[in-house]
Amino acid sequence: MDPAVSDATVGRLPAYLRAAIDLGTQGVTSVSSDRLAEEAGAHPATLRRDLASLDITGTRGVGYDIKYLVSQISLVLGLNQQWPVVIVGAGNLGKALANYGGFAERGFPVAAMIDVSPELVGSTISGIPVVPTDELPRLVEEEDILVGIITTPADVAQEAADMLVEHGIRSILNFTTELLDVPPTVTCRSVDIATELQILSFYRQRGRAAQTGTGVPLGSEHG
Amino acid sequence: MDPAVSDATVGRLPAYLRAAIDLGTQGVTSVSSDRLAEEAGAHPATLRRDLASLDITGTRGVGYDIKYLVSQISLVLGLNQQWPVVIVGAGNLGKALANYGGFAERGFPVAAMIDVSPELVGSTISGIPVVPTDELPRLVEEEDILVGIITTPADVAQEAADMLVEHGIRSILNFTTELLDVPPTVTCRSVDIATELQILSFYRQRGRAAQTGTGVPLGSEHG
Repeated sequence: MDPAVSDATVGRLPAYLRAAIDLGTQGVTSVSSDRLAEEAGAHPATLRRDLASLDITGTRGVGYDIKYLVSQISLVLGLNQQWPVVIVGAGNLGKALANYGGFAERGFPVAAMIDVSPELVGSTISGIPVVPTDELPRLVEEEDILVGIITTPADVAQEAADMLVEHGIRSILNFTTELLDVPPTVTCRSVDIATELQILSFYRQRGRAAQTGTGVPLGSEHG
Repeated sequence: MDPAVSDATVGRLPAYLRAAIDLGTQGVTSVSSDRLAEEAGAHPATLRRDLASLDITGTRGVGYDIKYLVSQISLVLGLNQQWPVVIVGAGNLGKALANYGGFAERGFPVAAMIDVSPELVGSTISGIPVVPTDELPRLVEEEDILVGIITTPADVAQEAADMLVEHGIRSILNFTTELLDVPPTVTCRSVDIATELQILSFYRQRGRAAQTGTGVPLGSEHG
């Protein structure tokens, strides 16, 4: 496999994986690129090119084997291991993420939530303990935390990021509007809802409709 | 301006816009492409190409005029008009979005939230009224709703989308894990948190770090 898989390809792999898993659940054992692309909301030619770039090939007239697709894409995405998560900020958004059922089953168990509020610390939200900030070192050590999700108010998001980085977490998902400053060795993705709305507004005022998925990196790469 | 602005460019414009607005707030009046790219978390060459594709040009040795940048990018994104929003689903995620301060100031006022729960209907969340489903036609008519945000449980997300589409809403932002089926005239973007985590996991296990932003469309275009 080409070590330099493009960021755009990486951004589309989760949709292919989900489509393949969904089809497998429905009892489908092999799938054409057209059908898989339709399920994933992607363009068939793009999908074929993406999978070929990962050396994932189908059989002419039969298509891709579903089990092979799922295992290969999972391997590329690093989903053959668990990625324990800590959520920093137990407000509405943090709670919504804790309630979100999809994390653990996709390999991202939420080990704990961190908050500064004395009313929240010591409670559990959807079975997830809320702990104070000073428990982070213990969590990272004992629970092997690899990912930090920041759902704090924007004005303390940088502080939260600094704390995560200081304790060795190198993958951050930022849900605040703050643009975070992290060292080049840390991967930080931002999910900004206003950005999504602005993109919707572009397509609508242009009279173009777009069936679209999520995140492809913005293009700047470090490390 | 080229009418066929690429989806990847569209996906990066909101970050450029935010960076330009931030710099303007700090009293900056003109900016180099390098500085703007740094603020936006983008690659300078990509930024220059993107802006050139929109006929947005800077002055050699001076850079881009901030006011011009903000007005031109806003115009391209259709942000010279208001895009009233309805949020379907007043659970934790819906509440988190209602609490999110950034919508109205970026041209996306939240007119109402829709929920089926008798305990929630009639209340207000962060000043936003929660109304029953059958008020949607009146809302669309009187409040000129252009965007629907779906934050329901996944198993009723398609039903929510069908309802929005039936009442003439053609821009949908989907926060559930459900892949929505909408007519080709409707633009639907999905924000799937597990997708973002899978992308993070890719970069981490590859030992590559990526400073990244949000969503670029998956590539399939209709309408």
